[in-house]
Amino acid sequence: MTLLSSDSVTSFGPAVALACRECGTRTELGPHYACLECFGPLEVVYDVPRVTREQIAAGPQSLWRYKDFLPVPADVASQPGLRPGWTKLVKADNLARELGIRSLWVKDDSGNPTHSFKDRVVAVALSAARQLGFTTIGCASTGNLANAVAAAAARAGLRSVVFVPSDLEAGKTVTTAVYGGTLVAVEGSYDDVNRLCSEVAADQPWGFVNINLRPYYAEGSKTVGFEVAEQLGWHLPEQVVAPVASGSLLTKVDKAFKELGAAGLVEATPYKVFGAQATGCSPVSQAYRDGTDVVRPVRPKTIAKSLAIGNPADGPYALDVVRRTGGAIADVSDEEVVEGIRLLARTEGIFAETAGGVTVAVTRKLLAAGLLDPDAETVILNTGDGLKTLDAVAPVVGPSATIPPSYDAFQKAGLA
Amino acid sequence: MTLLSSDSVTSFGPAVALACRECGTRTELGPHYACLECFGPLEVVYDVPRVTREQIAAGPQSLWRYKDFLPVPADVASQPGLRPGWTKLVKADNLARELGIRSLWVKDDSGNPTHSFKDRVVAVALSAARQLGFTTIGCASTGNLANAVAAAAARAGLRSVVFVPSDLEAGKTVTTAVYGGTLVAVEGSYDDVNRLCSEVAADQPWGFVNINLRPYYAEGSKTVGFEVAEQLGWHLPEQVVAPVASGSLLTKVDKAFKELGAAGLVEATPYKVFGAQATGCSPVSQAYRDGTDVVRPVRPKTIAKSLAIGNPADGPYALDVVRRTGGAIADVSDEEVVEGIRLLARTEGIFAETAGGVTVAVTRKLLAAGLLDPDAETVILNTGDGLKTLDAVAPVVGPSATIPPSYDAFQKAGLA
Repeated sequence: MTLLSSDSVTSFGPAVALACRECGTRTELGPHYACLECFGPLEVVYDVPRVTREQIAAGPQSLWRYKDFLPVPADVASQPGLRPGWTKLVKADNLARELGIRSLWVKDDSGNPTHSFKDRVVAVALSAARQLGFTTIGCASTGNLANAVAAAAARAGLRSVVFVPSDLEAGKTVTTAVYGGTLVAVEGSYDDVNRLCSEVAADQPWGFVNINLRPYYAEGSKTVGFEVAEQLGWHLPEQVVAPVASGSLLTKVDKAFKELGAAGLVEATPYKVFGAQATGCSPVSQAYRDGTDVVRPVRPKTIAKSLAIGNPADGPYALDVVRRTGGAIADVSDEEVVEGIRLLARTEGIFAETAGGVTVAVTRKLLAAGLLDPDAETVILNTGDGLKTLDAVAPVVGPSATIPPSYDAFQKAGLA
Repeated sequence: MTLLSSDSVTSFGPAVALACRECGTRTELGPHYACLECFGPLEVVYDVPRVTREQIAAGPQSLWRYKDFLPVPADVASQPGLRPGWTKLVKADNLARELGIRSLWVKDDSGNPTHSFKDRVVAVALSAARQLGFTTIGCASTGNLANAVAAAAARAGLRSVVFVPSDLEAGKTVTTAVYGGTLVAVEGSYDDVNRLCSEVAADQPWGFVNINLRPYYAEGSKTVGFEVAEQLGWHLPEQVVAPVASGSLLTKVDKAFKELGAAGLVEATPYKVFGAQATGCSPVSQAYRDGTDVVRPVRPKTIAKSLAIGNPADGPYALDVVRRTGGAIADVSDEEVVEGIRLLARTEGIFAETAGGVTVAVTRKLLAAGLLDPDAETVILNTGDGLKTLDAVAPVVGPSATIPPSYDAFQKAGLA
């Protein structure tokens, strides 16, 4: 359903159309996500203006500094929103030492407003929703996306309708419900929730960020790549390790690097893109290992729930990027995920959610296998916050000692 | 115990001495916190260099942009650390409308690395620890400070020893223990833990951030005030509302405003400072109401645990600031705290911890009482993150409806 009437004034900035990633057929900018010719996914096409590093550096300290590479109007930064992005790129010398790698950085997206990279994609989807006349935005989610949509809608003065499985932990329900939107608990699996949302999106005049707004939404992930390059002093890293859920983030970081090179903002030096999955949901890693481009759906079973997409929409595109750039994909057990979280926390003081543990643990594994070059400048992406996945580490960390409240007891405990 | 030998090379930047806040007696910079003459608290004294707005704006995007106003060396930004500060100042138009106030901003310190303003004070204390030769930093805490110390020490490569009451919720233990320092669970109340830490600090060569490093630590809170003024375009707000635990933050924001005026960085326009407490721990609010400057200790009983200091060290100084500037102090019930959290979340998409709920609810109360001017530009301080105090809102927020996974059921639920 489109809400665009002929007299609507809309602006998607430098975006000029949507195009099918499979057959290339173009369609107008609108709430469309599948090609009418071949049902392939649609992607935003741009006519990017000439932009200088100085213009970008003078822009807002948020993802909107890259508005000239996004389907958003020129005044997007003045619209009400959470202003995510421009998160820290941390020089991870302690972790590098432990892993035996020369130059390592962590792009830490736990610094976003609701503490995950989802704030970026939601910000772009919300701008599109506004341009297309939607006053309600929605999503299906079990966690980070639900938080991001509900919070962004609250700030923007839009209504949110978020669908979650009814057996979600109370904690995750709270972190969405507190923003006061409509929260629908669905008695069924996450797949059931997703199916229901597609039906709702087809019938209600609502913008579902990861359904009918998906082409815009997905572009938000490019800003991770833009920021990494700018924060490195306008050059591309030689290696980047990204977690893989739908596979979209990984492909968009690659797209960002290519766009920066094409725009002359960085030298188009070679880089390798690596993917990280949890073994309990590793269809893309499996396809990489099998040497195929067919991603076979799996039933997820892992503590890394934010990566637990058994049938990843962008899996084949992620495989393309990894193979084209000379990277690799690997997966790690839940025990290794927990070790990855602890390693990052004790070396860099960054408490990542399970997805971050996956990325750290896979980085270690790829180094051990000789697939990551220990002498190449490497960036790993932490996409979320450990405060949201406390259960993952709760069983294995705790007090060093429990003592009575006396100095004598303290001395006897041998902690000095 | 001091570790400074005569040949140590130390630098506290523009800081030149410590001085007693009561009798003015000066002492050398060192791990001292109480006046040898009168046992009054020591405060850092500076010889501030001439600094321009442009120099500050060209500095790092962290609290270190204000290094010329802090007891830290010139190269502090290049030392390993979490780089807190430079958090968002959010124009809160939706909240302003609900509260009936013309111009309202939220300084949102949940954006700090461990999601509370404690990262700021710990950063300055850690720098002092390094200058004084401490290789171990510690604290007594039940929450935010423990997180901040353990994380900062991990990044900086120092050892941390954090003392907590042994009956702490498992969640709060996890968020400190994950950083891998020494975590000591003490069988006793928070007061018992504090007493034990004072004994340990007297005997071990350790820097306790809020004991023997307290004069440095406390200065970190000034950066909240500096950032507010710079982010407003280099002017002082007319009103600021700060939560009161020890009272230190409130007094340091006032100190920051005065220092900016004295340095010629802002016009020294009048401003009023307001304090916010939870009724279940409101000794400063009570003293304000009673018209006295004697703060009588209480036994805390409130969900706002990060403000639950029954005997606030800086209470009398906070009262001074509030009365001198023409502000006020008020307190709110735990029910109002929860309403404050929900109000901020649904209007601005900011999920604050209980302390933020206190500040929002007190702001509403002071407006209703005519003590805050609805026409004056006002900044309220959110010092922490709702993800750390989920229990406060869990009983009162939840799904709008629970439905079977069918479009028919969705339509019947009347949510469209």
